[in-house]
Amino acid sequence: MFNDPHLSPLSVGEALAPAAIPRPLRVGMIGIGTVGAGTWRVLRRNQGLIAGRAGRGIEIVAVAARNLARAAAVLDGVEGVELTADPLRVATHPGVDVVVEAAGGTGPAREWVLAAIAHGKHVVTANKALLAVHGNEIFAAAQQRGVAVAYEGAVAVSIPIIKALREGLTANRIEWVAGIINGTTNFILTQMRDEGLDFDTALAQAQALGYAEADPSFDVDGVDAAHKATLLAANAFGMPVGFEQAHVEGIRSLQAIDVACAETLGFRIKLLGIARRGGAGAGGRERGAADGVELRVHPALVPARHLLAQVDGSMNAVLVKGDACGVTMYYGAGAGSEPTASAVVADLVDVARLAADSTAAHRVPPLAFHPHAQRDRAVLPMGDVRTRHYLRVPVAAGRADAKELVAGHLAAAGVPVQTLHVHAVPETDGAAAIDHVLVVTPAVADAQVQAALERLRDAPGLCVQAPVRLRVEMLE
Amino acid sequence: MFNDPHLSPLSVGEALAPAAIPRPLRVGMIGIGTVGAGTWRVLRRNQGLIAGRAGRGIEIVAVAARNLARAAAVLDGVEGVELTADPLRVATHPGVDVVVEAAGGTGPAREWVLAAIAHGKHVVTANKALLAVHGNEIFAAAQQRGVAVAYEGAVAVSIPIIKALREGLTANRIEWVAGIINGTTNFILTQMRDEGLDFDTALAQAQALGYAEADPSFDVDGVDAAHKATLLAANAFGMPVGFEQAHVEGIRSLQAIDVACAETLGFRIKLLGIARRGGAGAGGRERGAADGVELRVHPALVPARHLLAQVDGSMNAVLVKGDACGVTMYYGAGAGSEPTASAVVADLVDVARLAADSTAAHRVPPLAFHPHAQRDRAVLPMGDVRTRHYLRVPVAAGRADAKELVAGHLAAAGVPVQTLHVHAVPETDGAAAIDHVLVVTPAVADAQVQAALERLRDAPGLCVQAPVRLRVEMLE
Repeated sequence: MFNDPHLSPLSVGEALAPAAIPRPLRVGMIGIGTVGAGTWRVLRRNQGLIAGRAGRGIEIVAVAARNLARAAAVLDGVEGVELTADPLRVATHPGVDVVVEAAGGTGPAREWVLAAIAHGKHVVTANKALLAVHGNEIFAAAQQRGVAVAYEGAVAVSIPIIKALREGLTANRIEWVAGIINGTTNFILTQMRDEGLDFDTALAQAQALGYAEADPSFDVDGVDAAHKATLLAANAFGMPVGFEQAHVEGIRSLQAIDVACAETLGFRIKLLGIARRGGAGAGGRERGAADGVELRVHPALVPARHLLAQVDGSMNAVLVKGDACGVTMYYGAGAGSEPTASAVVADLVDVARLAADSTAAHRVPPLAFHPHAQRDRAVLPMGDVRTRHYLRVPVAAGRADAKELVAGHLAAAGVPVQTLHVHAVPETDGAAAIDHVLVVTPAVADAQVQAALERLRDAPGLCVQAPVRLRVEMLE
Repeated sequence: MFNDPHLSPLSVGEALAPAAIPRPLRVGMIGIGTVGAGTWRVLRRNQGLIAGRAGRGIEIVAVAARNLARAAAVLDGVEGVELTADPLRVATHPGVDVVVEAAGGTGPAREWVLAAIAHGKHVVTANKALLAVHGNEIFAAAQQRGVAVAYEGAVAVSIPIIKALREGLTANRIEWVAGIINGTTNFILTQMRDEGLDFDTALAQAQALGYAEADPSFDVDGVDAAHKATLLAANAFGMPVGFEQAHVEGIRSLQAIDVACAETLGFRIKLLGIARRGGAGAGGRERGAADGVELRVHPALVPARHLLAQVDGSMNAVLVKGDACGVTMYYGAGAGSEPTASAVVADLVDVARLAADSTAAHRVPPLAFHPHAQRDRAVLPMGDVRTRHYLRVPVAAGRADAKELVAGHLAAAGVPVQTLHVHAVPETDGAAAIDHVLVVTPAVADAQVQAALERLRDAPGLCVQAPVRLRVEMLE
């Protein structure tokens, strides 16, 4: 049979005596919008392939939807699927082995997921907000009930980055994880750079093209990236999820002039989600970092020649540095119906592969480490985080003492200077010419740079516009 | 306990009552050279972290080595490890649960691995040659005996690409896999491009720096990449491993002029391992590909702006295109002691997580698909493979009819032309000036281009040097 050319992979169900193949995994799905419909479509289209990999079929047997007519249109007359308007009916359905939560949001979704767990169902979700906020409660409940909670689709959907962290890189002491984990902002940043647009124009373009929502704050203010960074940190360092501890800055106040100035210095600006082991890792010690974990989302200058700087448009990429593997990178679509479905279905296959009598002791733990090996690591206050910095100090054009003055103020504030450069912008449209003094620093504590920035801003007769600081990440 | 800040992850063994944690996984290792010593080091250094992830300890209890004195130096006086010169002693050791084959080679390694399987041991290996040549036999034996064979370290060591294919992307019909999967050749190609070196000089540099072996043929002739491409193809398409069916070309005959000409056309040259679904996939149909799977290793021009073109030095990267996930990429070190150990230890953690009574039905199958769903897919003869091509036709400088003549011969040979360009090289060091007519074609069958090349070569009075063809991969 191994070499039978007549055996199509679509005929897996017929290929073995019925007794030899476990019965299909029965899936209940809550929500059949973008993620749910993609999951339905992919499971139908590739059912033979998927069963050949999973060792058994995967069948959606119940669907809860707010709009039953639209849901029925997605299901397209396929029989044997129970359609209901009641999510709890699916969450507690006696004929369901695993519940896919594809509804989104945090309040009701939390209740449905907890109900499913209480009824002994495994849970698959791509809902990063839910897990970043309620993950500890949900994982503890699942652990206690002996069911799995899988969420590959919650971070950088098309890329199996949760699997890489939880299973692929288990040999390593993870030093840091850093990534472009929000497609909307990466699209906007790419447009700002490629077309020289300001933020508002690039945002409007992204909205017109469907890359940004009408209310874009969740994306552009960094909240979505922070949800994902929280999950990455928990998996990398064996700590509970703690979204409220993350430092979150978006790209709303990013100016076109800084995109251009970064370019002249050999950098590009990306919105990064970063989780870094503090004093414990070798890298941390070298940078003089305090003990604890860094968990932060903010725009950052990255070297233009770095692979991550080449990740453009709405694509995502995550870098992971481990002490054995070195720097690795994972790249792919970060959103979309089928890319998300790719992750959801992979989670379903993982669940399908669990033996009926498998226990938590023999599973991949939800947050990479078994509960007894987790630690509630302190997240460093942002003021204590040490990174390199970019500073832009706008002064009157032609001042001969500009560099000297800026350097003097920085020295007085205890901020060392690595490079100092003047970027002259000539008079345009009636706006006065400005010399932008650009500074790149070695690693300095964040609070110290903030204090220096205020000192520069308040220095009498120095700045003609507000000075700007951005962090620099070398990602080595 | 969950939030106890005093509980170090190193104390996992003490954190639970002894009965609650399964006994450690006992590892026997054959060979303690680069891979084996790295595995030993990483397991020792990160033992607490690894146990916290695996849910149990992982201990090396027996080691076979040719040079016992050197092995003892690596073990560094650690007690409780049996050291022997007899690999079969380790392969059949009653106190061993899993055997790490870290010896390399194909003949004896095959025997040791089969002996371990016959004695009910799981096997972990990073030996791509062994699996590309003897994989079918080894996997069948393991299946029959109910043990696992894991080999993450066999391809692009630091990157969990086997895991991505077998578990992360299970939802997808894989359309193609393409990668830079040999670090030595990528280092040489990077030097040729960055420094303008010819192949021999770049190879000598690579040898001096330890990136290439004294006998480099295994790497530079593409054999190593073909072993890996064979494993990727098997996992992507659910077919047995079939190294002997791969088309294998290395970079030995690559000329500096082609590296330069590729650059002027907006391409870079990389040695790629490619596995592509033929007529079955949408992409295949568009390109007019015949049915069957493409399995090939050869240098190829890739767009200079493509992320893969930025992968330089000895680094590896693998692209996977699935019908749901789209194009994804995985990047990291492709060789080295600890990057390989990262993969070997991850495999050990996977084995440690298997329940004692787990059966093959509930495991990840060795080649991604359960045996009953595998198909012995035909590998397309290279002549039938359709790709875009780059042609360089060196003619006497200043010939006004050069482009016209070349286009005419190609038309007569049925090879369409997409772009036609003349790259003039002036007289240097007594060598006559040459006009290189550069052609890029749309997708054409390989055999047809070969015939056209011979026609150009044989055209009286046309070529002043042998014309050259290289394949072009857009990787979209």
